[in-house]
Amino acid sequence: MLCFDPGDAAYLAELAEFVAVPSISRDASSATMGAAAQWLAGQLRFADAQVVATDGHPVVVGAWLGAAGAPTVLVYGHYDVQPTGAEAEWATPPFQLTVDGDVIRGRGVSDDKGPVYIVLKTAQAFLALEGRLPLNVKFLFEGEEEIGSPHLPAFVADHASDLAADLVISADGAMWRPDEPSVAVKSKGLASMDIVVHGASTDLHSGRYGGTVANPLHVLADILASLHRPDGAVAVGGFYDGIPELSPQRRREIADIAFDVPRYLAELGLTEPHGEPGFTTLERLWERPTLEINGVRGGGKYTVIPHVAVANVSCRLVPGQDPDAVIEAIAAHVTARQAAGARVEVRADDARVPAYTMPGNHPAIRAATAALQAVYPGQRVLLTCIPGTLPATTLFERVLGAKTLFFSFSTADEKLHAPNEYLRIRRLKEGMRAWEHLWRLLATRHTPT
Amino acid sequence: MLCFDPGDAAYLAELAEFVAVPSISRDASSATMGAAAQWLAGQLRFADAQVVATDGHPVVVGAWLGAAGAPTVLVYGHYDVQPTGAEAEWATPPFQLTVDGDVIRGRGVSDDKGPVYIVLKTAQAFLALEGRLPLNVKFLFEGEEEIGSPHLPAFVADHASDLAADLVISADGAMWRPDEPSVAVKSKGLASMDIVVHGASTDLHSGRYGGTVANPLHVLADILASLHRPDGAVAVGGFYDGIPELSPQRRREIADIAFDVPRYLAELGLTEPHGEPGFTTLERLWERPTLEINGVRGGGKYTVIPHVAVANVSCRLVPGQDPDAVIEAIAAHVTARQAAGARVEVRADDARVPAYTMPGNHPAIRAATAALQAVYPGQRVLLTCIPGTLPATTLFERVLGAKTLFFSFSTADEKLHAPNEYLRIRRLKEGMRAWEHLWRLLATRHTPT
Repeated sequence: MLCFDPGDAAYLAELAEFVAVPSISRDASSATMGAAAQWLAGQLRFADAQVVATDGHPVVVGAWLGAAGAPTVLVYGHYDVQPTGAEAEWATPPFQLTVDGDVIRGRGVSDDKGPVYIVLKTAQAFLALEGRLPLNVKFLFEGEEEIGSPHLPAFVADHASDLAADLVISADGAMWRPDEPSVAVKSKGLASMDIVVHGASTDLHSGRYGGTVANPLHVLADILASLHRPDGAVAVGGFYDGIPELSPQRRREIADIAFDVPRYLAELGLTEPHGEPGFTTLERLWERPTLEINGVRGGGKYTVIPHVAVANVSCRLVPGQDPDAVIEAIAAHVTARQAAGARVEVRADDARVPAYTMPGNHPAIRAATAALQAVYPGQRVLLTCIPGTLPATTLFERVLGAKTLFFSFSTADEKLHAPNEYLRIRRLKEGMRAWEHLWRLLATRHTPT
Repeated sequence: MLCFDPGDAAYLAELAEFVAVPSISRDASSATMGAAAQWLAGQLRFADAQVVATDGHPVVVGAWLGAAGAPTVLVYGHYDVQPTGAEAEWATPPFQLTVDGDVIRGRGVSDDKGPVYIVLKTAQAFLALEGRLPLNVKFLFEGEEEIGSPHLPAFVADHASDLAADLVISADGAMWRPDEPSVAVKSKGLASMDIVVHGASTDLHSGRYGGTVANPLHVLADILASLHRPDGAVAVGGFYDGIPELSPQRRREIADIAFDVPRYLAELGLTEPHGEPGFTTLERLWERPTLEINGVRGGGKYTVIPHVAVANVSCRLVPGQDPDAVIEAIAAHVTARQAAGARVEVRADDARVPAYTMPGNHPAIRAATAALQAVYPGQRVLLTCIPGTLPATTLFERVLGAKTLFFSFSTADEKLHAPNEYLRIRRLKEGMRAWEHLWRLLATRHTPT
């Protein structure tokens, strides 16, 4: 076994450099994004890594191909992060990696800089201690995952032969719970859009015009309220089209998994579940699509009738749903609610990702399961679903013909996308040990197809 | 007649100094608010003006009492302004007074710095040309009108004898149209609140938790949609309680006023009216209360379920409505819509203003009408309503026992509270001539009671 100690201060100091770059793909300058990419390339000198420009933020690619005859894997991850949200809600500055007891805190430590860092250190440890990696490893790190990977498809298509691999291993895609090992065999798709309501040509004084013109915020509230039925189901006609019925067997499998709903809620500060009727919380999470309003903006706390109001809406999709059809169904539902004196518009985002699945008996799933059993002896490895979206998976399948194994060591409860994102420090060490086992297993016992 | 030319560049340069102080009562520092107050006091040296501290922004008070035996009027106005809204929507910087053809543009030029400036220049012209004012004039300018005048009641109560007057004349309270003179005999009251929906203890990743917990934005949309009926009427039980039925005579009076609804809408970029059924647009504007959502905030365009969502709501009230009862009715309506997994809270604002009325045959109304007829010969002077709110009016009536005459020369269409607020330059001159006539008439012909 490789010998290293990622809890070591030097390791955390190095990860802190990566976290310190505020690589928010939605907002950051190209200089900032470039700095994060360069940092990664610096870590990947052993793989002759390059920062390659795209029409958006650059990608970092590299390859170590010294294991003649062994399989080739493509490691995927991303160096971009979500916006911080309200900085006042952070206990410590978001781009300053902070050790707090058993965890480290900072934007991106869990999604996805920490998990990417685990792979870097694993590869470097192999090279330092054994002079080689056990199999051929290519690396592809992008800077646009959090905005739907708009330029990744063109890049992968243009570099398909360079990126060719037997298997993609994603350092992105958190495990669902910290206290039990799991391998995800499914992730949800994504379709998102803005609903924009236009009223008068300018903001109006709410006294001098109130009650005589349509208020875009009222129209928007009506539309948003109409998207769900009172029981929690999505009310958009056609939204659930194409989804196979949940089989009694799958229901039993899910019911078999220890999942304490009151505890799940309590950790979120909640006491009552919510969601589509006829399904348990875990079924809702893993097997059912969702439609969530992510944001609403309009006017403010002053006496105004705003001339425009905007809602940001996203849907998580399951196998059987077509992202384009979902967007069309919502657009039809919304635009049917045009109100006199207002104009309603749906602006669908370009990024449309169908759900992704991997067979539970795939050799890579078996290797990952064995690797996790080595690191967490005596524990059952669950086959789970990622209710989040990893747009690259369907792309790799389509263009490279390779399945993607999710192998991240972040956990779903680590406030990904929220203030005070954190990562459990022990997972750095566990993750490196697991990547070591996985690579050895893929190289010797399991030949990915 | 006094001889002056307020279109003169020197006058506009001086007004530009006042506009340049970004005295946004909601946000500005006390230094900024103090600078605006000091500017006013500098203009009012003839009245020994003082800047007086309050628990909020300071007031500016002064008095010229050299007209022994003549009546005393108290001139009221405000030096604070609304927030700019999106600065990108301004054609020119909001705090840089800009001449654009027949108008000047800048935050506060219409509400209320321009109209206040008219009074200052009128008084200074009297003193320069005649050595005296025709009647005794006290001045009271506050810095918190746009946030509901929270500290004015205590100030007026504490200084009631200093402020005592036969009549208050408000430089605030725009005329309703630029092309016909009018005197307002009524203004609407105000009750406002925030509706806050709390969900989980932190923002949640919309993939990893979506569909299993209540989304505060969904709950808020349901609540906001429930505040109005589909036909436009307010759906809150008790909201309309206490309002006398609109008399056939008043309906006829309003129908008699030339009011071109398509043109009114076209000026706002609209084609269709909206509002409470059973009333014309002008009846809705002048005679009926309103409930408007002014702002909504929550989450953003990223994959999040926000842990809190907020709506800012305000109501314009008519005679017969009790602001406290209106707030209670809305709070009861809203909190009855508690949803599982969310907590709904109503935070009512302190400022609660009932509607204000003045008899149409009041001597001050007659004097104002005559003054306007002198400036706008041959035109009918309309008796109108201000659908906005002037909280000071009821205060002056209660504490000083004095009615308030609205005598502003801004106009309701001048984008008050919105980007690109402007004032017609000719109104500076017309306003000064009208104030001159009004003061002379009040001093000699009409003795206010």
